[in-house]
Amino acid sequence: MIPGKEAVLATMQRVAPHVHRTPVLTATSINTMVGGDVYFKCENFQKMGAFKMRGATNAIAQLSAQALEKGVATHSSGNFAQALALSAKAKGIKAYIVMPNSAPTIKKTAVLGYGAEVIESGPTLKDRETMLEQVIEKTGATFIHPSNNMDVILGQGTAAHELIEEVPALNYIITPVGGGGLIGGTALATHYLSPTTKVIGGEPFGADDAYHSLKAGKIIPPENPQTIADGLRTALGDQNFPIIQQHVTEIIRVEEEEIIAAMRTVWERMKIIIEPSSAVALAALLRNKEQFKGQRVGLIVSGGNVDLNQLPF
Amino acid sequence: MIPGKEAVLATMQRVAPHVHRTPVLTATSINTMVGGDVYFKCENFQKMGAFKMRGATNAIAQLSAQALEKGVATHSSGNFAQALALSAKAKGIKAYIVMPNSAPTIKKTAVLGYGAEVIESGPTLKDRETMLEQVIEKTGATFIHPSNNMDVILGQGTAAHELIEEVPALNYIITPVGGGGLIGGTALATHYLSPTTKVIGGEPFGADDAYHSLKAGKIIPPENPQTIADGLRTALGDQNFPIIQQHVTEIIRVEEEEIIAAMRTVWERMKIIIEPSSAVALAALLRNKEQFKGQRVGLIVSGGNVDLNQLPF
Repeated sequence: MIPGKEAVLATMQRVAPHVHRTPVLTATSINTMVGGDVYFKCENFQKMGAFKMRGATNAIAQLSAQALEKGVATHSSGNFAQALALSAKAKGIKAYIVMPNSAPTIKKTAVLGYGAEVIESGPTLKDRETMLEQVIEKTGATFIHPSNNMDVILGQGTAAHELIEEVPALNYIITPVGGGGLIGGTALATHYLSPTTKVIGGEPFGADDAYHSLKAGKIIPPENPQTIADGLRTALGDQNFPIIQQHVTEIIRVEEEEIIAAMRTVWERMKIIIEPSSAVALAALLRNKEQFKGQRVGLIVSGGNVDLNQLPF
Repeated sequence: MIPGKEAVLATMQRVAPHVHRTPVLTATSINTMVGGDVYFKCENFQKMGAFKMRGATNAIAQLSAQALEKGVATHSSGNFAQALALSAKAKGIKAYIVMPNSAPTIKKTAVLGYGAEVIESGPTLKDRETMLEQVIEKTGATFIHPSNNMDVILGQGTAAHELIEEVPALNYIITPVGGGGLIGGTALATHYLSPTTKVIGGEPFGADDAYHSLKAGKIIPPENPQTIADGLRTALGDQNFPIIQQHVTEIIRVEEEEIIAAMRTVWERMKIIIEPSSAVALAALLRNKEQFKGQRVGLIVSGGNVDLNQLPF
């Protein structure tokens, strides 16, 4: 069941008081490169540095008093781990985060810093899922999936919602595609609030499962995805895939060098720090420049959490 | 002769239409570190990436029609070279920039990209000054000094002017100190527009000529300055020194490691790119944390032009 317009509007009311209304930035030099108008919705300035805060906030806000008492749990080594930890802290409830023992210390430290409990698992997805089941059995916490949860999807859509309110008459909105939460929420919000705006996904060739899933008409999980855009190595889910099928026009795939070049362009020209996953959206735009000439294009800059010791340049 | 309030107000009128009104950002995590409220005036988002655009714009706007016809000239291998080039381009006049042959290609390319003529000189200050004299003799262009020119100083003050308009009742404004243009203009604008706000300079121990000059009561040029903050290796001048003497409360000196740590803090926490010279202001604040506890402090983030191939981390 795909949510209706009422759900999109209610989500905005629910989420807005708890997240930053992030700025929309433009850059003359990038507009000149494209020959169009590009609007960057800067979720790198969001709390904890990524749009994931929106979905986590919305999911927690929907829990019953009884569920809140037992806390929330997820498995993630990325931004969602931090987002759930911080949202839980803001709500005053417990968060249990299952992270692979291979995860960088810096990520564990960040989650611990937000007051969550970190439970280490083996490195595979199976290891993590098994550990998560154990945690949930023991604690009674509610599992919040990072991307395949309708409240999370709706929450992620509030970034596009704000963008549409601020910048009317967009021809396109481009987002990166990972687990499908961001693009699903964006497509839904855009469908109801700006129906003539087309939503496009950017995806690395090295993790192009959404591209193949849309072609096949069914979810095809990525096999051994290889990309610098570490947020985009995950699979779509049954909650977001139908939305993507109905409301996303196209997936544009990009090479790794294009991602790094786009990231560098934004750092140099706009003086803002965006993570590789975010650069995928600009890389997609620049790869298909002709398509966007003279158009008004919104880009969701998904986040800015970069390890400065591991830069690609 | 130190300009009066009328000059400060007129400068704002003159400069505002030609520069970005840059945003003022805050970061909860940095406020927590400091125990006060810190307001970052983000001149890294200014045209060409630094506050220098303001001074260059103001100086050019003050030229006679006859002078405009012959263009402007300066010697600089840093942000002022780009600022004068871009301001001249916007005004449709010629700019001659003397740069040492040792300057990085990337900097020459940037200046050429703004349509200026680059004239190479030998590497010493003397070489540059001699070459500049020759250029001026040949072309009749007006020399615009990067920091020791009252129109430049007044122009640089418009960043503080905007900050004061946007954030009332600041206890302090901190700027980096290099050639004295930024801190001079800031001190002047603050003196007239927010007289209870104290202006403080941040300066590297490796280039602490302003500190010693204020102590001695006369300009003592830096001897072989060594600092990562490449914009701060220059000397004060007779135009800005009297302003600094009268209206700057204090110079706080910082170590190189403190500059790099402050720069990294801003990149990681605020997701914005600031150059080492800008980080000096935050480093000064963090070094003397006790002084700023519970205070409202404005920081002028001077610029964001960083060579991503030469990062200190």
